[in-house]
Amino acid sequence: MVVADDFLFQGLNKAGNTSNQLGSFVTPVNVNQLEGLNTLGVSMARLDFAPYGINPPHTHPRATEAFLLVEGTLYVGFVTSNPADPAQKNKLFTKYLYPGDVFVFPQGLIHFQFNVGKTNAVAFASFGSQNPGTITVANAVFGSDPKINPDVLAKAFQVEKNIIDYLQAQFWSNYN
Amino acid sequence: MVVADDFLFQGLNKAGNTSNQLGSFVTPVNVNQLEGLNTLGVSMARLDFAPYGINPPHTHPRATEAFLLVEGTLYVGFVTSNPADPAQKNKLFTKYLYPGDVFVFPQGLIHFQFNVGKTNAVAFASFGSQNPGTITVANAVFGSDPKINPDVLAKAFQVEKNIIDYLQAQFWSNYN
Amino acid sequence: MVVADDFLFQGLNKAGNTSNQLGSFVTPVNVNQLEGLNTLGVSMARLDFAPYGINPPHTHPRATEAFLLVEGTLYVGFVTSNPADPAQKNKLFTKYLYPGDVFVFPQGLIHFQFNVGKTNAVAFASFGSQNPGTITVANAVFGSDPKINPDVLAKAFQVEKNIIDYLQAQFWSNYN
Amino acid sequence: MVVADDFLFQGLNKAGNTSNQLGSFVTPVNVNQLEGLNTLGVSMARLDFAPYGINPPHTHPRATEAFLLVEGTLYVGFVTSNPADPAQKNKLFTKYLYPGDVFVFPQGLIHFQFNVGKTNAVAFASFGSQNPGTITVANAVFGSDPKINPDVLAKAFQVEKNIIDYLQAQFWSNYN
Amino acid sequence: MVVADDFLFQGLNKAGNTSNQLGSFVTPVNVNQLEGLNTLGVSMARLDFAPYGINPPHTHPRATEAFLLVEGTLYVGFVTSNPADPAQKNKLFTKYLYPGDVFVFPQGLIHFQFNVGKTNAVAFASFGSQNPGTITVANAVFGSDPKINPDVLAKAFQVEKNIIDYLQAQFWSNYN
Amino acid sequence: MVVADDFLFQGLNKAGNTSNQLGSFVTPVNVNQLEGLNTLGVSMARLDFAPYGINPPHTHPRATEAFLLVEGTLYVGFVTSNPADPAQKNKLFTKYLYPGDVFVFPQGLIHFQFNVGKTNAVAFASFGSQNPGTITVANAVFGSDPKINPDVLAKAFQVEKNIIDYLQAQFWSNYN
Repeated sequence: MVVADDFLFQGLNKAGNTSNQLGSFVTPVNVNQLEGLNTLGVSMARLDFAPYGINPPHTHPRATEAFLLVEGTLYVGFVTSNPADPAQKNKLFTKYLYPGDVFVFPQGLIHFQFNVGKTNAVAFASFGSQNPGTITVANAVFGSDPKINPDVLAKAFQVEKNIIDYLQAQFWSNYN
Repeated sequence: MVVADDFLFQGLNKAGNTSNQLGSFVTPVNVNQLEGLNTLGVSMARLDFAPYGINPPHTHPRATEAFLLVEGTLYVGFVTSNPADPAQKNKLFTKYLYPGDVFVFPQGLIHFQFNVGKTNAVAFASFGSQNPGTITVANAVFGSDPKINPDVLAKAFQVEKNIIDYLQAQFWSNYN
Repeated sequence: MVVADDFLFQGLNKAGNTSNQLGSFVTPVNVNQLEGLNTLGVSMARLDFAPYGINPPHTHPRATEAFLLVEGTLYVGFVTSNPADPAQKNKLFTKYLYPGDVFVFPQGLIHFQFNVGKTNAVAFASFGSQNPGTITVANAVFGSDPKINPDVLAKAFQVEKNIIDYLQAQFWSNYN
Repeated sequence: MVVADDFLFQGLNKAGNTSNQLGSFVTPVNVNQLEGLNTLGVSMARLDFAPYGINPPHTHPRATEAFLLVEGTLYVGFVTSNPADPAQKNKLFTKYLYPGDVFVFPQGLIHFQFNVGKTNAVAFASFGSQNPGTITVANAVFGSDPKINPDVLAKAFQVEKNIIDYLQAQFWSNYN
Repeated sequence: MVVADDFLFQGLNKAGNTSNQLGSFVTPVNVNQLEGLNTLGVSMARLDFAPYGINPPHTHPRATEAFLLVEGTLYVGFVTSNPADPAQKNKLFTKYLYPGDVFVFPQGLIHFQFNVGKTNAVAFASFGSQNPGTITVANAVFGSDPKINPDVLAKAFQVEKNIIDYLQAQFWSNYN
Repeated sequence: MVVADDFLFQGLNKAGNTSNQLGSFVTPVNVNQLEGLNTLGVSMARLDFAPYGINPPHTHPRATEAFLLVEGTLYVGFVTSNPADPAQKNKLFTKYLYPGDVFVFPQGLIHFQFNVGKTNAVAFASFGSQNPGTITVANAVFGSDPKINPDVLAKAFQVEKNIIDYLQAQFWSNYN
């Protein structure tokens, strides 16, 4: 028996708790929180940023994100996929965003948002999937359970193993 | 040559002009306004409501809408499709929305939002299509160009033809 | 255990009973009636029209309709979605159809069929979905259960409330 | 500039010419004949059968077919795909169809219709694609241009090569 | 509880047993053998050919095949769908393949591979579906259970019925 | 004018040149190299690994990969997306692969392959997209053009900025 409440989620006016190492918090409103989105191909999220807070480099494997800044100032960017010509580079596209700006992060590309202002920032994100998924690069690469073999990462990142040890020793939070 | 500005739309912090008969205004941010959304399956809109303003019954033929109220109070609803059993009725689902509420309007269903408060209301909508389309029932049925034959509508709505004449004589605006 | 009867529906040669206020009847053959259509993306319907019978303005939220007239004469039409430029109008496309004519009603657009002849009319419809859904505008807007608040509709249709009361007082049948 | 005629196809009330070796004729109404179907995921066809006429074993690579018999009597069938267990067989599902019967031929499966009555038969088909495609098995296997190497076919059909020569020597018409 | 083994299939280095009438064997790795492919839209197969072995004319109703030859020499081909103009023919595209060659068999088209060398041949196939399905033309047309009525096939293939009897009398194996 | 060569790619039997910092090379066979794959939803690649060579952590934004090892021994793994419960961790799934093993890397997830043997390794990959795309994490995060602001990355990875400077100073090759 379907009722109107199945299509309602409450509380997106509440700021997320940004008292963490990243200084940011994401409040998702996807099919896990709002059952009425099932099979319907769209979802949302609220993003809160303390001053200098960051939503670190991550991807959404199943959706593009349209990102609306409503408060504060953010420096945002995404990097294109590997170029066909190896002499080329992965291109970085960045913008400073101000309230009222909408920016597009295409499906699957690595992107980030960084609060460069001295005040909080608030944004709302729209996703073209009921469950876009999020893969935070640092968490997946350096903070998985169990850890990825450090020899693998040293080779992959072309650095000394002690750098990898150092990176893996950080506390990798899964706030977003 | 793609540049970062191709992925940016500016100005969604500006209130739409609600000085019209409906007392509402929709500012779309779909692929027509933001080229970077092309092929990416998502779009947005800002909705402004004056006191007692209405976004009249309409459908989006190509997308579900996740609707976030950020300011004011709205009475919203949608009606389900024709029931398999003709003895049943088309069901109306309604809610009063307050800031922070997200409500789902499933793809293709007729829905509306009505400002029941004495203050302005502001909402942001997310759509699971780069170009969801909007069909405002009153405009399409009574305000098309040319007009639908009034005999057709009198029969369809099971009323006297003069009621249809009256309805067609209104000025049907296409604000949203 | 799948058997051949799972792929068979019988009786589409029988005329639907058009002895109702609209003078029309739709006999659907979608996944609800023919289980073998499940996951296969197509369905059908038979439409019967008494003289002056109407299939009133409606939409199919999940499929385009290819409509084949096999008997009689119909006046049919659909209205395009809201124009990007508000100075434009929703355009009405109409045709008189004769036996052997196939007409396309694109997904989600409001359309109607009206029997302008003095004889019965019969048509077969093809839909690109196993379950296209039907939203009859008059039923959904004026005949839902419960009723939409008449203040909402008066504002939406820009008419006096007593017109809405009159419209809502009609008996809204769900034949199609 | 789109006009109403873009959505109209005329003439499906005309019987196809069945004076050919197969005794059948298919009149397609897909995007090649009716431009207004473009991107809309549905199409139709009319099928005419002389007494003992056949629409020979074929597949539609891009759509399921819902098949409505409106006149005459047909013996129809389809064969399921290769079984996971080689000790099983490809199953044949058949039905005798009478006017008003709708039968489903799932996407990609080999199927046929055979007029077992002494009168003409007429059917209308609905497809869940704007361009379903048709691959007539006999034409593709024995009547291609150039011919498939007869050694290949002799091995494939596990018969003497002279049987293949005989089959390839027939005139393979492409009526449907 | 998902574990790494859910994403693993072992044994595709083992040659299939080609001691059968066709002289070929297909080892599938689709969702039936490898559960971790569920919902993920891709699958594989290994194909082994004895000298003069054949993978007889067949179609995959739900996927295109990218076919990589790693050992031996094959003569391969596919036939296009029925032409719009009946004066045209179904076109046959063929190639001799050598190790390292990748050939594309488009979705739903009839295709075959024939070992023209004196040594074994080995290939790996990629499919754009978790379960592409296979319809072997000879098995489906002449070896179904129950048999297709020979009158139907005689008419369809435009040959004497005794040819059909002969073809149906063969043992139709379902190795692939 | 379509010809058979449009469906053919040659040379996947040739080892890629692994004389680079990663000790691996990917030879793609997607729609950019093989035009006949257009619209057909599948593609392939060959992967070569020198001893201790690595295909570093990367994602494919538009396809799942079925990975077949044909020679050598690899240690492979992928990491799941962010958990719903932040107290959980991103889970790492790993396997040692031997010739004949097929492993699945689900769409969008970060994964890697590492040659743990003393001999070369060779694999073939199947993708459920004509153009799966590849995003190598290290290249996108530390080797983009222009560089991502090191303050952003220091915060994101929760390390001192000199670590980021060191990482960004490496030569980031785009071999794969």
